[in-house]
Amino acid sequence: MHAVQERMREINPKDLIAGLEKGLKIIEAFDDMSQRLSPSTAARRTGLHRSAARRHLLTLEHLGYLESDGHMFWLTPRVLRLGWSYVESAKVPRIVQPFLVRISQALSAESYFSVLDGDDLVVVGRSGYMQEHNSHVMLGSRVSPRLHSAGLMLMSTLSDDRIEEWLNNDGPYYALTPFTYTNPDDIRRKISDIRLHGHCLLEQQIETGTRSVSVLVRNRESMIVGALSITVKIGTQDVYETRQQVVPVLNSAAALIQAVL
Amino acid sequence: MHAVQERMREINPKDLIAGLEKGLKIIEAFDDMSQRLSPSTAARRTGLHRSAARRHLLTLEHLGYLESDGHMFWLTPRVLRLGWSYVESAKVPRIVQPFLVRISQALSAESYFSVLDGDDLVVVGRSGYMQEHNSHVMLGSRVSPRLHSAGLMLMSTLSDDRIEEWLNNDGPYYALTPFTYTNPDDIRRKISDIRLHGHCLLEQQIETGTRSVSVLVRNRESMIVGALSITVKIGTQDVYETRQQVVPVLNSAAALIQAVL
Repeated sequence: MHAVQERMREINPKDLIAGLEKGLKIIEAFDDMSQRLSPSTAARRTGLHRSAARRHLLTLEHLGYLESDGHMFWLTPRVLRLGWSYVESAKVPRIVQPFLVRISQALSAESYFSVLDGDDLVVVGRSGYMQEHNSHVMLGSRVSPRLHSAGLMLMSTLSDDRIEEWLNNDGPYYALTPFTYTNPDDIRRKISDIRLHGHCLLEQQIETGTRSVSVLVRNRESMIVGALSITVKIGTQDVYETRQQVVPVLNSAAALIQAVL
Repeated sequence: MHAVQERMREINPKDLIAGLEKGLKIIEAFDDMSQRLSPSTAARRTGLHRSAARRHLLTLEHLGYLESDGHMFWLTPRVLRLGWSYVESAKVPRIVQPFLVRISQALSAESYFSVLDGDDLVVVGRSGYMQEHNSHVMLGSRVSPRLHSAGLMLMSTLSDDRIEEWLNNDGPYYALTPFTYTNPDDIRRKISDIRLHGHCLLEQQIETGTRSVSVLVRNRESMIVGALSITVKIGTQDVYETRQQVVPVLNSAAALIQAVL
């Protein structure tokens, strides 16, 4: 969360709505390990007093974002409206979406548009293609940037100091496959390689048998707005063929998107 | 929103965190027609005073949920974390997900798990299949229950009074295709038909050339928790063949899910 903290704008303390900050913390405190929270658990996970946590839980229940059996609280589908506001309103993912559809049709592959949110890579657009694992990556999915070509592509544009800071924060370097980079030196080397080639090709970091390729998307002011990627199965072509086939398609989509952003 | 209002639990006014309610309203005020809001527009859309709207916008910017150029504000991908908390923590969609994958593989069709949120049908799980329009329905998508088989399936389980109330609130009955029901009598007839058959088959309400089939999912206490659906293209088989092929697959998945819920 370090990078998010950095980006946050200073606020005049008298303008800060403390109850809003605490309530949003409570919503984010629910995850796959904490599907139901009591006021005490919610307090522990957010650093609030138990009585404050309880009032926030009751307010969220009253507003329909939580349900409760009187003791435990859990999120309702209404919470999805909040994320949906982003999907509906964000200009860049809306503009990128038709290009994702064309990319996945042209390359017979799943395509993604991703952005960095602090130290996380977030998928904010996707277009599917028939594939066994089609449903694993969903809108809003988060992953460490080191595990996906889009993440390393975006990271490679930052300063070396920022990258070192991220490498320090990002550990422990758990491995999801036998091929996952667990040594920061491997990641540093990969980032140099990306800067040299202008795209990122990454294999088997999240699951075996997959290869992903990413390029940057910029707006008309040349500011980076995200990364386009595709994921293919390893085996039908070698790395050289993939680069030859995929990079021009991604780059020409990125150029067309740049013209309208 | 009427049904949501009804379901909301009464709260002791001293427990209500007003700032939290207003802040969430502000997030939901962003949509595809209002991608960027000024404090005045946000105030108008939420019924807040301009100065209160401004303080909430500044707080959300400070917390990283909004960005701003000093005058207009827009949502950041961080907002997706809120919806993602639901996806990660909600028990039912997590249990249903592997069944969706199997259904879409067995039937070569996109499959969905949907729930009612007030007067909206919300998709809370999906599994893709190669299809031109694969990307149109995304997690968190909302639609009027009248337009999708899962919506009418879930609506058919409510009392006739509740259905009449919904039909009153749900208009105007705009048509998305030449086949969309625009007469409440057609919807009433369809609901009787669903109650008789125990499943819902609906054609061409959202787009031409598509057919969807839905069945209910209950938990071990026989409470309704949502609906399973698939969407297929019209043309490869007739309605009778679709029923014969699809309904048993959906029903057996629903029975297996019921056993573990």
